[in-house]
Amino acid sequence: MSTILRPGACVEMAHGGGGLATTRLIREIFARHFANPLLDQGHDAARLDPLPPGRLVMSTDAHVVSPLEFPGGDIGSLAVHGTVNDVAMAGAWPVALAAAFIIEEGFPLADLDRIAASMGAAARAAGVPIATGDTKVVERGHGDGVFITTTGVGVVPEGVNMAPAHIAPGMAILVSGPLGDHGVAILSRRQGLEFGTAIQSDSAALHRMVAQMVAHVPGIAVLRDPTRGGLSATLNELAEAAGVTMTLEEAALPVRPEVAGACEMLGLDPLHIANEGKLVCICPPEDAEALLAIMRAHPEGAGAVRVGTVGERAAPGTPGLLRMQTLIGGMRVVDWLAGEPLPRIC
Amino acid sequence: MSTILRPGACVEMAHGGGGLATTRLIREIFARHFANPLLDQGHDAARLDPLPPGRLVMSTDAHVVSPLEFPGGDIGSLAVHGTVNDVAMAGAWPVALAAAFIIEEGFPLADLDRIAASMGAAARAAGVPIATGDTKVVERGHGDGVFITTTGVGVVPEGVNMAPAHIAPGMAILVSGPLGDHGVAILSRRQGLEFGTAIQSDSAALHRMVAQMVAHVPGIAVLRDPTRGGLSATLNELAEAAGVTMTLEEAALPVRPEVAGACEMLGLDPLHIANEGKLVCICPPEDAEALLAIMRAHPEGAGAVRVGTVGERAAPGTPGLLRMQTLIGGMRVVDWLAGEPLPRIC
Repeated sequence: MSTILRPGACVEMAHGGGGLATTRLIREIFARHFANPLLDQGHDAARLDPLPPGRLVMSTDAHVVSPLEFPGGDIGSLAVHGTVNDVAMAGAWPVALAAAFIIEEGFPLADLDRIAASMGAAARAAGVPIATGDTKVVERGHGDGVFITTTGVGVVPEGVNMAPAHIAPGMAILVSGPLGDHGVAILSRRQGLEFGTAIQSDSAALHRMVAQMVAHVPGIAVLRDPTRGGLSATLNELAEAAGVTMTLEEAALPVRPEVAGACEMLGLDPLHIANEGKLVCICPPEDAEALLAIMRAHPEGAGAVRVGTVGERAAPGTPGLLRMQTLIGGMRVVDWLAGEPLPRIC
Repeated sequence: MSTILRPGACVEMAHGGGGLATTRLIREIFARHFANPLLDQGHDAARLDPLPPGRLVMSTDAHVVSPLEFPGGDIGSLAVHGTVNDVAMAGAWPVALAAAFIIEEGFPLADLDRIAASMGAAARAAGVPIATGDTKVVERGHGDGVFITTTGVGVVPEGVNMAPAHIAPGMAILVSGPLGDHGVAILSRRQGLEFGTAIQSDSAALHRMVAQMVAHVPGIAVLRDPTRGGLSATLNELAEAAGVTMTLEEAALPVRPEVAGACEMLGLDPLHIANEGKLVCICPPEDAEALLAIMRAHPEGAGAVRVGTVGERAAPGTPGLLRMQTLIGGMRVVDWLAGEPLPRIC
């Protein structure tokens, strides 16, 4: 039974002071929605043992998405999915999350409660407890509603060891489904645009699918989630790190027609647009079909396809390169996005 | 050799877009100042193994201190010390930090560089690597310079197991040194006040001192760092969790004369003021002298003293209680701070 959620109640500076108001905010909103045995220890530092065997990994993400709520999700569920996926992309099973909130004075407590409820539900659905947290409040005009930084720890099973250096000529490039849904969903909500059908964010936790992938094919070279900067930024970074050329097949790239239409209207390339529930997998070509079959057996990977191939190693002293075989048979370089048309997408 | 640190250069929205500008910001500022083998892996998720034996703990803190630089520290060193200490208060040895930055558009890159340098130096001095990170940028007027969320993981040695439930009547309450330095240093800088002598923040990493304390006295009931809300909030929370009365001796409370004077001028109680390099230790009375001797052998614990005693258990159905034997022989209740005179102290 909450006593702070009065109609019209807002976050006040005292809620960030570390005194009684902070304790009540934590108890009546965060602890209520996140309840789990780790968090319920009530320490500043949560004990995570016992852990499954394997090597520990850690990843952190500050979430500043605007708007806070969008078709298919909100900053709370996104903050869970984003960090669960970053941990999973190391081939790890996520075991716990930490959540730090920076809230703007005057933010409605009812909105905070709704976001916390969504966050708690996402963590329960993923099976990854929010083990510890922190709450700060900044003055009106020095924040933007709420920012949520989530940090995850996970355990990489024995025998799994992914790294860009393992990318080799001839390997297959797979994606787990249609590109650009998240970014376009955010933009449509932000700009009040309608694109015929409502485009939903693909925000989702991918760790269960990844666990099956790495169990069946420990030789996967790299997994990545193409978030900010989209598939283009992800593959450019990997091509540079591995010192290889990569070639995408435009005809094979999965993009929903409504997303393609929205991108055309906005002058954007789906390759540059953020995804929050997709992964890129680079693997030996002989493993591609098995991995696609595993992905397609999960709702999050139903649209998995092979989109390209790792080509020759770049000449010594030259960087890696990402290019695309276009629909009309040409070959073009797919560059990093230089500017920033899509701020605060996650 | 940095190419982005041109005179007058500021953080732009593109620095948060996940593309080339983000990569350059990370390389030329964060990676340069934080360089260590874990971060240099260059993955979203850093691998932390091998870990020392023991149980894993995790703690997170969003740092929003204002001003960003203050006598005795800045948000960068504070973000390291704050999280190192939260991990250490579980009796753990901190093994790695994650750092997430939320930067306001227009923030001078030179300021960011100076803060990152301070943060890197603090992490190196503590011997705790910044293993992974994230960078986001928000529009001008939606942030406040830079916010830094640090998350730490650490390992609790076998045999150490602290919890408020272990607090028992008759135990000693120790503090590691003078109270209120950090909060008063921030306030003096924020309000442009001079108090005769410059009051420095006590911001410091306490994990080495704690490691010796727990190695010699595994029976410590609880360690806490009295940050937001000061000693009063920390002991009230513990008294409530343990269901006991605690009594402080006003005559024993260590407060520097200049801090006491500043508090008197500002109408504040040093018991409510944040510390960033102090700890509270509750231990069996027979261990108090040994622990004080260990603390006093460290620069961070040079002013360690016993300040009070755990009294009787609270009657069933009544909360714990913190009270103080005053200088003039009376007894008064020391309450939580209800309001918020000291926002954004950490």
